[in-house]
Amino acid sequence: MDNVFDKMRDLPLLQGISETTLHSLLEKYPFHFLKYGDGEKIFSCDDPCTHIRFIFSGAVRFVVKSLVSKISISYSLEAPNAMGAEFLFGRKPNYPFDAYAQGECGILQLTKADYIKIIQSDDVFLFNILNYLSRNAQETTLRLLSLSHGNIPKRLSLMLESLVPPHASQVELEFKQKDLCLMLGSRRSSLLTSLEDMKKKHMLDYTQSSITIEDRDFFIDMANL
Amino acid sequence: MDNVFDKMRDLPLLQGISETTLHSLLEKYPFHFLKYGDGEKIFSCDDPCTHIRFIFSGAVRFVVKSLVSKISISYSLEAPNAMGAEFLFGRKPNYPFDAYAQGECGILQLTKADYIKIIQSDDVFLFNILNYLSRNAQETTLRLLSLSHGNIPKRLSLMLESLVPPHASQVELEFKQKDLCLMLGSRRSSLLTSLEDMKKKHMLDYTQSSITIEDRDFFIDMANL
Repeated sequence: MDNVFDKMRDLPLLQGISETTLHSLLEKYPFHFLKYGDGEKIFSCDDPCTHIRFIFSGAVRFVVKSLVSKISISYSLEAPNAMGAEFLFGRKPNYPFDAYAQGECGILQLTKADYIKIIQSDDVFLFNILNYLSRNAQETTLRLLSLSHGNIPKRLSLMLESLVPPHASQVELEFKQKDLCLMLGSRRSSLLTSLEDMKKKHMLDYTQSSITIEDRDFFIDMANL
Repeated sequence: MDNVFDKMRDLPLLQGISETTLHSLLEKYPFHFLKYGDGEKIFSCDDPCTHIRFIFSGAVRFVVKSLVSKISISYSLEAPNAMGAEFLFGRKPNYPFDAYAQGECGILQLTKADYIKIIQSDDVFLFNILNYLSRNAQETTLRLLSLSHGNIPKRLSLMLESLVPPHASQVELEFKQKDLCLMLGSRRSSLLTSLEDMKKKHMLDYTQSSITIEDRDFFIDMANL
């Protein structure tokens, strides 16, 4: 059981709480520990965020659907992590992606109503969620300020930073080359030269219609060297 | 005094509170009402967000500084409005812009510590800030999903939606044409044709090195017709 406590206190939004607080929360609120088999769907794009959900063990694969664009993005996140906490409140509290178990995976969840009670009961939870949500808003602004500064790796990096959360792995982009050129503001020949160069630096692999980035954070570091 | 109460309850983050609650808040916490003369600086880029600040009367001019890019953006916001509430928490609680009074203007402010006490004391304030911060995060994700979908007006619209808050007026972009072409992923000739077309539709005015957009929301509506 000790192991479970330690693991819970590693989760974003639950960090910094005392073991005593955690014990009393577990007694008071119905935290659910769910198991999913490889490939099983955890939730779908447009599902309402009725619960705060954490990846407690294993890994989850996210697929970002886009109605208007022909570019799709998918990526994996490992435990410990939160899933889409920025979609719990606001105007449209629905997930913008599908989520699938990647291998066996354990999800910890709590209803939104209970999570709100916890935020209200303890400052640490309040600060955790305020910081978490603010970080998102800030990073976007700061990133967009550097939008014009871009060679192709930096522009790809901007897109990764905006759409894919920290620590994500096996990021896959699927596209028509024309759309990717348009999105990155580059000609086809420059795009191909740049992709080949990034491949040599082990930042990515690519085909005619897809890019695979093994490690989001490594890519961003390399692109901004 | 009634007028002041009504105006306070129009402010984002203070919406939905009862008059009784507001009365007791005003008695308990030192809300400061400050006056600034035309052109006076309210705060500078990189200043720490020590207070939650509202535009209570008049208008404020924001100038977004960018170290890496050569594109600068400025815009005006009128009362009632919040100023940079998304920079109050998170990893870097500093303003990313300068703010100047545009004409005579009144600012209402409260220390961050007191604002936190208010959030903790009343659910309405808690939900207001959670919704406010989540909305930012959500809009960014949803917007970036449509990034590849862009003609020039839509790309400009994306930039406006990301960098300039709702209801902003007199938005000015300054740039070197080369940088703007790069940022919008377009050739110079297409950019000029598109700018001329948008000018005819009263969406903007432009010179060699600047674009003026009178009304952010009107521009976005027109670009997405």
